[in-house]
Amino acid sequence: MTETLSIPMNGAESMVRTLLASGVEVCFGNPGTSEMHFVSALDRVEGMRAVLGLFEGVVTGAADGYARMAGKPAATLLHLGPGLANGVANLHNARKAGTPMVNIIGDHATAHQRYDAPLTSDVEAIARPVSHWVARVRGAANAAADVARAVQAARQAPGQIASLILPADSAWDTADGVAPALPVEGPAAVGEGAIGRSVAALRTGGKVAFLLRGAALQGRGLAAAARIAAATGARLVCDTFAPRVERGAGRVVVERLPYRPEPAIAFLQGTETLILVGAQAPIAFFAYPGQPSELTPPGCRPLVLAHPHEDGVAALEALADAVASGPVAAPGPRLYPALERNAAFGAEAVLRTVAHLLPEGAIVSDETISAGFPHYALFDGARPHDWLQLAGGAIGDGMPVATGAAIACPGRKVVNLQADGSAMYTLQSLWTQAREKLDVTTVIFANRAYQVLVEELKGVGAGTAGSKAFSMLDLNNPALDWVQLAGGMGVEAVRVSDSAGFADAFAAAMKRPGPFLIEALI
Amino acid sequence: MTETLSIPMNGAESMVRTLLASGVEVCFGNPGTSEMHFVSALDRVEGMRAVLGLFEGVVTGAADGYARMAGKPAATLLHLGPGLANGVANLHNARKAGTPMVNIIGDHATAHQRYDAPLTSDVEAIARPVSHWVARVRGAANAAADVARAVQAARQAPGQIASLILPADSAWDTADGVAPALPVEGPAAVGEGAIGRSVAALRTGGKVAFLLRGAALQGRGLAAAARIAAATGARLVCDTFAPRVERGAGRVVVERLPYRPEPAIAFLQGTETLILVGAQAPIAFFAYPGQPSELTPPGCRPLVLAHPHEDGVAALEALADAVASGPVAAPGPRLYPALERNAAFGAEAVLRTVAHLLPEGAIVSDETISAGFPHYALFDGARPHDWLQLAGGAIGDGMPVATGAAIACPGRKVVNLQADGSAMYTLQSLWTQAREKLDVTTVIFANRAYQVLVEELKGVGAGTAGSKAFSMLDLNNPALDWVQLAGGMGVEAVRVSDSAGFADAFAAAMKRPGPFLIEALI
Repeated sequence: MTETLSIPMNGAESMVRTLLASGVEVCFGNPGTSEMHFVSALDRVEGMRAVLGLFEGVVTGAADGYARMAGKPAATLLHLGPGLANGVANLHNARKAGTPMVNIIGDHATAHQRYDAPLTSDVEAIARPVSHWVARVRGAANAAADVARAVQAARQAPGQIASLILPADSAWDTADGVAPALPVEGPAAVGEGAIGRSVAALRTGGKVAFLLRGAALQGRGLAAAARIAAATGARLVCDTFAPRVERGAGRVVVERLPYRPEPAIAFLQGTETLILVGAQAPIAFFAYPGQPSELTPPGCRPLVLAHPHEDGVAALEALADAVASGPVAAPGPRLYPALERNAAFGAEAVLRTVAHLLPEGAIVSDETISAGFPHYALFDGARPHDWLQLAGGAIGDGMPVATGAAIACPGRKVVNLQADGSAMYTLQSLWTQAREKLDVTTVIFANRAYQVLVEELKGVGAGTAGSKAFSMLDLNNPALDWVQLAGGMGVEAVRVSDSAGFADAFAAAMKRPGPFLIEALI
Repeated sequence: MTETLSIPMNGAESMVRTLLASGVEVCFGNPGTSEMHFVSALDRVEGMRAVLGLFEGVVTGAADGYARMAGKPAATLLHLGPGLANGVANLHNARKAGTPMVNIIGDHATAHQRYDAPLTSDVEAIARPVSHWVARVRGAANAAADVARAVQAARQAPGQIASLILPADSAWDTADGVAPALPVEGPAAVGEGAIGRSVAALRTGGKVAFLLRGAALQGRGLAAAARIAAATGARLVCDTFAPRVERGAGRVVVERLPYRPEPAIAFLQGTETLILVGAQAPIAFFAYPGQPSELTPPGCRPLVLAHPHEDGVAALEALADAVASGPVAAPGPRLYPALERNAAFGAEAVLRTVAHLLPEGAIVSDETISAGFPHYALFDGARPHDWLQLAGGAIGDGMPVATGAAIACPGRKVVNLQADGSAMYTLQSLWTQAREKLDVTTVIFANRAYQVLVEELKGVGAGTAGSKAFSMLDLNNPALDWVQLAGGMGVEAVRVSDSAGFADAFAAAMKRPGPFLIEALI
């Protein structure tokens, strides 16, 4: 500790300084009384960006979006068990995405925990189902070392949720100083045997597909996969809900596995070997009566090249070196979809226009659910961009992820393609976007129903919806007015109901910085 | 099973029919694919009201408000672990309030649970910290009996959270029929010893106060407490955050314990015996450096008359019979506060006007937090009403509780006194109010800050807020526009900024049925 301080450093301040020393630069938070010393410490420490969310689902979802784009964790600041619980759904999503995150969860002062005060709860029990690592600070002298360990745990490959519970007295008592960053080991190397088995599969001449996830869908990993595909004809596939994919003209196309079991199995039919790189063998999102959970078709052998915690990128590069003679030319640029100003208005028209106008380097946060499935390939030829998706199925991450991605990547346009029903879970995100002047354009796909459920009701064999069942799936009574909802949180918005109107609104949004919302009545 | 059914009854239908047989008539829900058979069963069964919330915090909070007013549980329908998690904060509040509730939580079909599908999580682990009773249906043949047990568990005094996990196959497979309601034992009788000790305390002549909670703050309990107070001079006190209190002209005044430790201890100073009826000895809401957690002052002896699971009402009546000679006259009617149309505008002016205009039989859902503390006594003389409060400290229950109370009590006006910061947690409630045409008038106390935290930052000795700390407490950049937010969800709204305007708007709201929102710029 070399700083000259006017007051002794308390536990909270030692944590903020240690987070910075460990490379954590953003704290998304929704604090309460028990976190006030941490909030106060943010004032005294230069360099930590503090971002307020008006609901904890925004906080944890934004930390997820930030980390997916920044490649390193943000911290969250949450208020006791209930505040943590409000963030659990998006922690679930982040955990399934392999996102690194450090949660600081305030708790009552140690001496106060024995009483059943109103906000007393079992914080560890709430944290555990969504955390890889859970610990509690026991005394301010340990606070700095504990948070350094939390960052180390979060950065373990492919990325972990680390939850550190901070009793108020450990925040307010005097600390010993700042702890140094702890070493972070990279992902484990893939053994020669696994690489050799994949080489053999590729050389037998049988039909091979790669199921890619994590870093394999970005940069070097994608380039190596492209070389392998060009040399061997292997297909490149990603999960229906991959956390992040680099896409667009100049990049190799990775096909997306269909959502429903039957089309997914048909999609993989004829594949003899399915090489898994950071992915698990494909599993149905939901079970349906009489349908299989496993989507690997009969006769298809799953083969693990790299587990999620392993270095799939290096393994792909080794594989490419083994099967591809020298570098291959990158795929030529493709043309993005034509703009059709007079097309019938609907999800396809919206997505075609977005794909046409999407600026280079954009980040797409996709939570279109049912509306987007059939039109995913439209973006294969768009200008190069990143595509982020709901990895854990807990709806309500599209808006927060967009918010966090915008904080991670100033200068890049973020486009949030957002189903209306899911948007209602974490609509408070718009306020943070307005407050932080984030460059996010939200497109609301206003079908005014949980449309995926209308389809699922039939899919599970539960019959068609009568009036009472339909009332549990329908959002049209009353209709949500997203122009007013956005305006109420300081985000300018327009409503469009035809293709030309959408094209004009979206083109204008791409040219102006700052948050904007377009409600598309599809 | 006597019904003639066109299709065999499945597990879901057997549960809906069993819930009805057990007296559960309302199901608040936010379902997903795994709950579609339950949703479909709602169609086929007459008598179960299905109410959709666009976020699970609305669902569980509304079930809390419903049960506090109906005196019996509602069911909730939640979508796997993450859907449950979104409802946990208001389950925490309901648990602290002693509210009965039956949660039906869908899960993947049993055969699908072994796979790590995106929505797979440890549902039991998420349920346990907020539930008194957790079980999982193991086969459709058990579904009816399991849900009958869940209702029985929920109705155990004073009211419990029962969480029943329903795998999709147990919903869709064929069931055995409907299960009968299981017997529910009333609260345990208080022993003669406890009553005798309280009688002795009252007869010694020392200063006695009663701390009342639960049924002791309603009807017969309150009448008995009034007799005791009239005969002995004992004070009647309730917790800062009592779940439900019957208040207003013609009823005995129950004083509210102050929020902060120092005033609370001063409030009880001189009390020699504090008789606890369904309440625990008072504890500080939060700990503060150097301040005590226990609020019972030195020299004051806590004495348990009735634990929360015991029959405090009968105990109070026995005590009244012992110390009061015959019935006493009810307190005479008091005058409600005068209307001051030209008063300086602020929380006091708003609350004075509400107290003046509140119609008889109204239900107040109070989540004013800091704005309301000093003005609670204004309602002692209002027309008779019920007063509901945030019992567990997890903000965001005011709007859902108002929603559920309105469903429990058609024909009674519900007034939600609502802090703006807390309102943002579960603002989706307004949509349900519009959809169900509920008679709820919401008054937003728009101070545009987490004002209680601005005060708490000083209270915990963390100093005054610098610009970065203040940015974590301030809601004014951008200002929330509640007229637009309400309009976006189909609720008519006005904004007022002076006392006359508020009086006119509130008077109009009291005369018209249906949801309405007034944003008061205090």
